[in-house]
Amino acid sequence: MCEASAYLLKDGKEELFLKEVDIIEPEGDKLRLINIFGEQKIIKARIKRMSLVNHKILLESEEGGE
Amino acid sequence: MCEASAYLLKDGKEELFLKEVDIIEPEGDKLRLINIFGEQKIIKARIKRMSLVNHKILLESEEGGE
Repeated sequence: MCEASAYLLKDGKEELFLKEVDIIEPEGDKLRLINIFGEQKIIKARIKRMSLVNHKILLESEEGGE
Repeated sequence: MCEASAYLLKDGKEELFLKEVDIIEPEGDKLRLINIFGEQKIIKARIKRMSLVNHKILLESEEGGE
């Protein structure tokens, strides 16, 4: 499977936000992430960088939080 | 490998933009995509939807194409 883990950049550190992410859908200034188990999280953040080969999505919060 | 193909939504149709994408990096109102062969493309577009399990990135141009 090719899902990736999403990390949130907070105070220069990367915190795991959601594992095994499949779907990523921007909605206005928010992002909807859905993982392979159907778990869904919405966060006011933007994608900073993704590497699919490394299975990593790095998110950056617009205003320091959700 | 877990790269995905990026498609650009144009006039309601999906056109292949870049295959085997690894890195996605937003830069202002542009997106930088780099594939596993090191090929790089920059486009004024935003991510509309991604499914990592389906290896698909759907891009939407902000102003009807680059």
